[in-house]
Order: sequence, then C-alpha cells, then structure tokens
Amino acid sequence: MATSMAPTRRKSVVEQIQDMILDLELRPGDPMPTEATLCEDLGISRSSVREAMRTLQSLDIVEVRHGHGTYVGQLSLSPLVTGLIFRSVLNTDNSFATLRDVVSLRIALDLGVADELCAQHASTTNPELRGYVEEMRTRTAAGLPFPEADGAFHSRLLSQVGNSLVSELAAAFWEVHTKVVPLLGFPPNTEIEHTVEAHDAIIDALEAGDTAAYRAAVLDHYAPLTRAIEKATADSPGAVPTVAP
Amino acid sequence: MATSMAPTRRKSVVEQIQDMILDLELRPGDPMPTEATLCEDLGISRSSVREAMRTLQSLDIVEVRHGHGTYVGQLSLSPLVTGLIFRSVLNTDNSFATLRDVVSLRIALDLGVADELCAQHASTTNPELRGYVEEMRTRTAAGLPFPEADGAFHSRLLSQVGNSLVSELAAAFWEVHTKVVPLLGFPPNTEIEHTVEAHDAIIDALEAGDTAAYRAAVLDHYAPLTRAIEKATADSPGAVPTVAP
Repeated sequence: MATSMAPTRRKSVVEQIQDMILDLELRPGDPMPTEATLCEDLGISRSSVREAMRTLQSLDIVEVRHGHGTYVGQLSLSPLVTGLIFRSVLNTDNSFATLRDVVSLRIALDLGVADELCAQHASTTNPELRGYVEEMRTRTAAGLPFPEADGAFHSRLLSQVGNSLVSELAAAFWEVHTKVVPLLGFPPNTEIEHTVEAHDAIIDALEAGDTAAYRAAVLDHYAPLTRAIEKATADSPGAVPTVAP
Repeated sequence: MATSMAPTRRKSVVEQIQDMILDLELRPGDPMPTEATLCEDLGISRSSVREAMRTLQSLDIVEVRHGHGTYVGQLSLSPLVTGLIFRSVLNTDNSFATLRDVVSLRIALDLGVADELCAQHASTTNPELRGYVEEMRTRTAAGLPFPEADGAFHSRLLSQVGNSLVSELAAAFWEVHTKVVPLLGFPPNTEIEHTVEAHDAIIDALEAGDTAAYRAAVLDHYAPLTRAIEKATADSPGAVPTVAP
C-alpha cells in the first residue's frame, strides 16, 4: 500500500480502492473485485463501497456496464474537464480569468506541436480537414454556430500528433472552453468569418510545411477570441489585473 | 441543480456537494456548510457526508484546516497529477507510453510559450535561474541528483508566463514525470552533464531574445531523456508501436 499520504488525513474509501487496483495490478477494462470482496477486504459497509464506486465512476477510474458488472475504467481526462469547468464557474471574482488561461493553453499546445504537425503534413492534401472548414462556412452563411465542425477540426488535427496525452488534453481544453463560454454569458464572436478562414490558413500552412506560417495562422485563429476576452475582462466590474498569482 | 448528467447514473454524494457549492456561489477559501447542514439538506447520514468530504479533500475541492473547520479548496491540478501517476503505473502493457507522452507534453508546453518567454526575457539577467543551474552543476560534480533545483528552474521559468493554468499544468507534468520515473524502474540519465548545460543554454537563448535558439535549447534539454525512453520502449518485452490510439 502507498505510504506517502499526508500524515494528517485518513485515506478515503475511494483512495483505498485505488490502492487495491494498483496492488492487484488491474488494467483498464479488467473486472473489478465484487462488492462483497471490497466490503470484506476493506472492512467497510456495502453502502460505503457503493458511494465510493459512484465517485470512482465520476473519476473514470471504474466503469459500470449495466447488466455486466464493474470494470476498471479508461482513466480518461474527463474528470479534468469537470474540475476545470467547476473552477471556471466558481472563479467569479475574475470571471474570465480561467477562460483566458484555457484559451492561452490551447494556443500553447497548438504552437508546441508546430514542428511535428508541419513535418507530417508537408505536401499532403487534407480533404477531411477542408471538409470541416467548408461545413463551418456553410453554417456561418446560414447564421448557425458550428461547434461540432470546430471540435472535429481541432480533434482531427491534434490526433495526428503521436501523443495521446496531447490530443486528450487539447480535446479536454476545447471542451472546457466550449462549455464555459455560455456558462459565463460570454459575448458571441463578432468576427466569425475571420475565424472560419483562419482554419483554412492553418491547413494551407501545414500543407506547405511552413512552420512560421502555421504559427501565425494559429495566433490569427485565436485573435478574435483573445481580443473579446480582453475586452470582457476590462468591462467586467470585478476585473483584476491579468497577472498570474 | 445541474440536469446534464448521464441518465443511467445516480449522482454521488460528492457530486451533490459540488452542486451545492455552485448553488451557494461559494469561492475558494469560503467556509463550507456544516456537516449537520449537509446531512439535513442532502438527506444523508453523517458517515456518508464524512466519506464524501474525504474524497472532495483528495480532489482539492474542499480543504480541512484542523481546529478551524472545512473550507472550499483551491481547486488545484493536484488530482490530475494523482490521476496521471495512477494511469502511468497502470499502463503496464506499454510501460513507458505514458512517460513518453508526459515528456512530449512538457516539450510542447515549453515550445508553446517560446514567443512570450523570449519577449519577456530579452536583455534581462536571471541570477535566480542561473543559480539553479549552478546548483545542478555542483550536485552533479558530487554525484548527486538534483530534482529540487530542476523543478525550481522549470517552475520559476513557467511561472513568468502570465497564465496560471500553463504553469500549473507544467508543474503537474513535471511532478508526474519525476514520480513516475522511479516507479517504472526507468534507467538513470547517463548524459546528466549535457542536461545541466542545456538549462544554461535555455537561459542564454531567452536573454538573447532568440526564439529559434530557445526552441533548439528546449529540444536539446530533453534529448537525452527522449532517447532513453525510445531505447527503453524498444527494449521492453511488451513494447507496442509508438502510435496514438
């Protein structure tokens, strides 16, 4: 069992079950010990086990397949998304600070994989990515938003980086971004055509294998949003200077 | 109360308390409702509340100050660290895949803030950063490891980015990296002098305001590690191709 816990805090049942998963060397998809085994091994009641399993489920550490049983979960970054949305909504003193940070982090991730993406895409054609941009264009012309096409574009792009953590994190932050915007009552993007065309410029730069042009297109893609966040932050009554703690 | 839950899963007490924090518009540092209030409002037993509070504490959503009471926590990224360490250790089919991804993500973050860091540091001197490198050099000469100086160097550098999420994530991944290496029995760095000098090259590039040199120094800084991970992955009996799912 792990021994590195803070000395002052008793382990929760949730943590005890996590230790058990490690001790038993279980992997994602493996069946979990039965409820009866957990009760007996941990010396706790059935209701405590059930409550802990509900929490572990919300953390994607266990997965309940109804009619089948309980399995070790996929350990995805979905709890991070939940946590960051929670934090964004709670952060009401400076309501756009977390959104600004989420967007800056998305920019940093997109810029951080510039070399890898450009090397991969030089001299290729990318009909799938172009198709998402075309869908954005069509929907914009019809006055409709395009979150699915936008999400699919970025997810498709980042999935080509040979690193599942980068693509999962980018997807997580895209999701936080998309969910937090309406929760915060953030004003709609008034430069939506610009945003659409910036997606095309990203593909152009990648296909040209031009890292500098890719970086410029990424920054241009986020520019309307970063401008809007700066404006909303300045207009917000509880605004504080944009400096990290 | 939130209504967007998956239809098949009953909310855990942990989630119900999170909803209550949102409904009451509490902020980090605010006192939590008393145990008695939580029992009454949620219609649950004192032991269920206590168990949920232990879990919320491990998620940094509540903070117990002994002798003072329970407060809304700082919502830090520490649960992400715990989750990723858990995932790294569990991922035994391809034991170095998560370490490789964590390192690539650290590289992407360091590269992603290149412009901002170079603009900030051009024509400055950075005795604090140089001091950490000097400490690494001294410890290396004495045959000692230097995790504190290394952590302090990267944490100091990234804290200068005006984005607490980037610096917290970078710190989180540094911590995962450092904790996972011994857990996985990863071989020690045989090019440690090279790593030390690469830190100095990073500062040189920043002070020169030279983004291209900074990017090159970052890649060079990680090169011994990425080579070691590639080698260990190739040598590992359960090795699988390094392609994202």
